Formats: sequence, C-alpha cells, structure tokens
Amino acid sequence: MRTLSVIGIGTGNPEHMTVQGIKALNRAEIVLIPRKGEAKEDLADLRRAICERFLDNPETRIVTFDLPVRDAGNPSYRDGVDDWHAAIARLYADLLSEHIGADGHAAFLVWGDPSLYDSTLRIIERLRVETDAAFALEVVPGITSLQALAASHRMPINTIGGAIQITTGRRLRAEGFPPNADTLLVMLDGNCAFETLPGDAFDIYWGAYLGTEDEIAIAGRLKEVAAAIVEARREARSRKGWLMDTYLLRRR
Amino acid sequence: MRTLSVIGIGTGNPEHMTVQGIKALNRAEIVLIPRKGEAKEDLADLRRAICERFLDNPETRIVTFDLPVRDAGNPSYRDGVDDWHAAIARLYADLLSEHIGADGHAAFLVWGDPSLYDSTLRIIERLRVETDAAFALEVVPGITSLQALAASHRMPINTIGGAIQITTGRRLRAEGFPPNADTLLVMLDGNCAFETLPGDAFDIYWGAYLGTEDEIAIAGRLKEVAAAIVEARREARSRKGWLMDTYLLRRR
Ligand SMILES: C[S@@+](CC[C@H](N)C(=O)[O-])C[C@H]1O[C@@H](n2cnc3c(N)ncnc32)[C@H](O)[C@@H]1O
Ligand SMILES: C[S@@+](CC[C@H](N)C(=O)[O-])C[C@H]1O[C@@H](n2cnc3c(N)ncnc32)[C@H](O)[C@@H]1O
Repeated sequence: MRTLSVIGIGTGNPEHMTVQGIKALNRAEIVLIPRKGEAKEDLADLRRAICERFLDNPETRIVTFDLPVRDAGNPSYRDGVDDWHAAIARLYADLLSEHIGADGHAAFLVWGDPSLYDSTLRIIERLRVETDAAFALEVVPGITSLQALAASHRMPINTIGGAIQITTGRRLRAEGFPPNADTLLVMLDGNCAFETLPGDAFDIYWGAYLGTEDEIAIAGRLKEVAAAIVEARREARSRKGWLMDTYLLRRR
Repeated sequence: MRTLSVIGIGTGNPEHMTVQGIKALNRAEIVLIPRKGEAKEDLADLRRAICERFLDNPETRIVTFDLPVRDAGNPSYRDGVDDWHAAIARLYADLLSEHIGADGHAAFLVWGDPSLYDSTLRIIERLRVETDAAFALEVVPGITSLQALAASHRMPINTIGGAIQITTGRRLRAEGFPPNADTLLVMLDGNCAFETLPGDAFDIYWGAYLGTEDEIAIAGRLKEVAAAIVEARREARSRKGWLMDTYLLRRR
C-alpha cells in the first residue's frame, strides 16, 4: 500500500519545521510541490527552501507540477471549487502512478497546519473515494498563522477561562463580532472586515507575512490603528504583489 | 538586558519541537523546569527528555524548581489564581537573580503553544510589572493539542468557510453548543461536558495523551461513542494517574 504524508510546514519561517515534519519529509520517495497556479510564487519558493535545507535523503525526489486553475467563471462558487478539487485529485492520482510504485511514499507540504483552512486533506479524501485508491495517510501538525500571530505579539490568545472564535473575513462582515466569545481570530480577509466594527469597543492585534523576514505587526485600540493597518496592507501588497495577513480582535 | 524565551514544546511528542524552538533552547544559559507542584510528573519528564535530546550547548544549565502550590482554600477562585501567579512571578524573579546575570538568557518550556490556555506569559507580564524587571521577551510558537487532535484523526478542523469556536468544558456545560459555529473545540474538560448535548445532533472526535505513546483516539456519532469515551477516560486515568484530553464536536 502507498503512504501519503501531509506535512504542516509552518507559515513562512523555515525554522517552524518540526523534527517530526523533517523526518516525514526524509522518509518520502517524492515530495510534491506546486509550481504555478499558486498566486504567490514566494510560497513555492519556501517549499523549495525547506527541501534544500532539511532534506538529506539522497533517494527523495522533488516532483513539481502545475496546479489546475480554478474556473472563476463558474456561476456557483461552490461548484467551481468542487470541480477544481476533483481536478486536483485526478492530477494527484496521475502523479502518484507516474512517480511511485504501489507501495511508494509521497509527501505534500502544507502551509501552516493541514487542519486549518486548507483543502489538501479534502482533496486527498476525494482521491481515495473517486479513484478508489488505497493508501495509508499520515498527518504531521505544523505551526499555524494564529500561533505565529500570538508569538509575534508575545500574547495569550484567550482571556482567562474565555472562549475563542476563529472565523473568516467574509463571516465577520456578515455576522459581526460573536456575542459568545471575547476573542476573535480572523483569517482569509481580503477586505479589512475589521472596519465594520465600532472602533472604540475593540483592541486589534494584526500581523502580515508572519514568520517571514517581511513580518509586519501592528496592535492597539481598533479606532486608533485601523487606518495604519489599511495603509500598511496597501503598501505591502503593492510592494510585494501579494499579502497574507490575520488578526485577533478582543472586546475591550 | 536579560532575555526570556518562552518556548512552545508541543504536546507530548518530543518531535513536535520546531527547529526554532531547538535553537532558542540552545541559546539559553538556563532552562527553568518545574519539578514538583505539577500534578503530572510525566510532563516534567517530557521537558527533561527534550533537553536531553535537543540541548547540545554545554554551557546551558537546567534549573529545576518547585512550583508554589495554589491555595485551593481561597474562597474566591480568581483571587486564589491571582495570588498563585504573583507567587510564581516572585519565584521567577528570585531564580533569575540567583542563576543569571543582568544580561543573561533564560528559557521556559511551555506545553503546547504559549498562547493557548497557558499562564506563563501572564506570569512573566507580572514579573515585568511587579518587580519592575527589564527584559527582552521572545515567544516561540509550538504545536497545540488541537493540531495534534486533528492530525490524529487526519481531519480538517473547519468546514469549508465555516467558523470554529474553542472553549472550555466549563463553558460548554454552562452555555451549550454555540449557535454561530459548526465546529467546537473543547479543552480543560475534567467532566465530559459533551454528555450534556443531544447525542443525535453531533459527531465527536476525541483524543487523550495526544502525541505520546499512550495516545488514544475515538470518533463517531456522539450518541454512539459517548459511553466508550467515558469508559476510556476512566480506565486511562486510573491506569496512569492523570489524564489530558480534548475533543472536537461537529454539528451533523
Ligand atoms: C488558506 S488559509 C491557510 C492557513 C494555514 N493552514 C495556517 O495554518 O495558518 C490562508 C490564510 O491564513 C492566514 N495566513 C497564513 N499564513 C500567514 C502569514 N504568514 N501571515 C499572516 N497570515 C497568514 C491568512 O489569514 C490567510 O488568508
Ligand atoms: C492548560 S491547557 C494547555 C494547552 C496547551 N498550551 C496547548 O497548546 O495545547 C491544558 C489542556 O490542553 C489539552 N491538552 C494538552 N495536551 C494534550 C494532549 N497531549 N492530549 C490531549 N489534550 C491535551 C487538554 O484539554 C488540557 O485540559
């Protein structure tokens, strides 16, 4: 039977790699690295840098591939994503039969932790169901952007005994700050959803490119720092061509 | 100025250590490890095992100390915790002046990630405020028990675009399942708060001693596996003398 390892690589600092992740990488016969299709070429570079630095098994081969492009024209967003995941699953099936044998071992490197807003595990589940593939699946946890955010601000995420909500920018915009948590972590926000909140009522701890050399962090009372965050995002995005940011909001 | 490094060590598997964590450990002059006072002697053992395996700076000394005991007799839980944290902060101040100089470097090893339901950063903040100590603070993120749980069940934590709540057993018991998230992560639950939910409406993914050799994982429809989890907890606790478990609940 084949083995697939899904390895969390952390969020930009190669030293986020765990000993478990490095070992799993070195047990693999092939490491699958997307080349194009990812908007952020820097992210593919990080995967290559991790392999260069931590891979010392001379037998392990790096297989780069072009990710299929999602059909943004599909009128249903959900169907578009669904078709796209199916296409990636078929591609994985082809890459595995091309590059490893019936009991081979392949590794996938996942940004952050594989369990948090990432589709690799879902796509591998489709590979199992739709191509009737048999394989052992190993998941290696990685540092998430939320832990990188808290480390950058040197702060606890929760208040004592308090609840934490993790959500997306889209949901924050639609639903507001949750009534049943005093800490909100926001991911996947392309549009500064924090601007829809009353700036007096919250503190914000924001970070972009966390873990990388370009890390930026801003914190303060929301109404006092919101404009600086909007400006820092604009400036960074135009300078680097892409942006990844996340933030924590706390009710005052 | 002194440097204090607060290093997340993951949740039981020494190989959860990150390269960043190993480097921070080796930069420290002393590593502070609590000896007694922690109910779970195994946890102190893990810290020692991590130092034995990853520390190769011959200058780094391990300083073990007895954690003060919390006054469980204090009628106010909050005041009790407050006094306890103050006592630990005083102890840290004493240990630092005893063992390192004015520009020395000390490391604290924190279970999981320092930002998630852990008091070390709060206590160090008290050390700063109450003893007027000046130091640089470095926080190194670590693998949390929640990522270890998801890895053990090889599953994503969130549904596609969905929100996640993280809470305590006490809150789940008091407040029920949050209406505004379809995934709930529960920590610090000594009492099986999942039993208060309608067993038909949820799936549960439970894990204990995650990352260690004694790891146990059970998953299924809540009503079908709740009794097995209660029994596994009882059996494991009586066998090992302590238990650490966490779980994910998902609305069906
Ligand atoms: C598709 S999700 C993947 C999350 C990833 N699996 C993790 O564990 O952090 C991408 C989102 O994660 C956050 N993110 C990932 N890396 C980041 C970084 N280095 N700095 C800031 N935010 C980051 C951003 O909110 C981004 O929109
Ligand atoms: C005081 S909190 C510390 C959490 C830690 N900082 C983290 O990042 O996971 C302790 C709680 O974490 C969870 N926990 C920690 N380690 C665990 C493990 N190895 N297996 C299962 N649950 C664990 C349990 O819910 C436990 O009650």
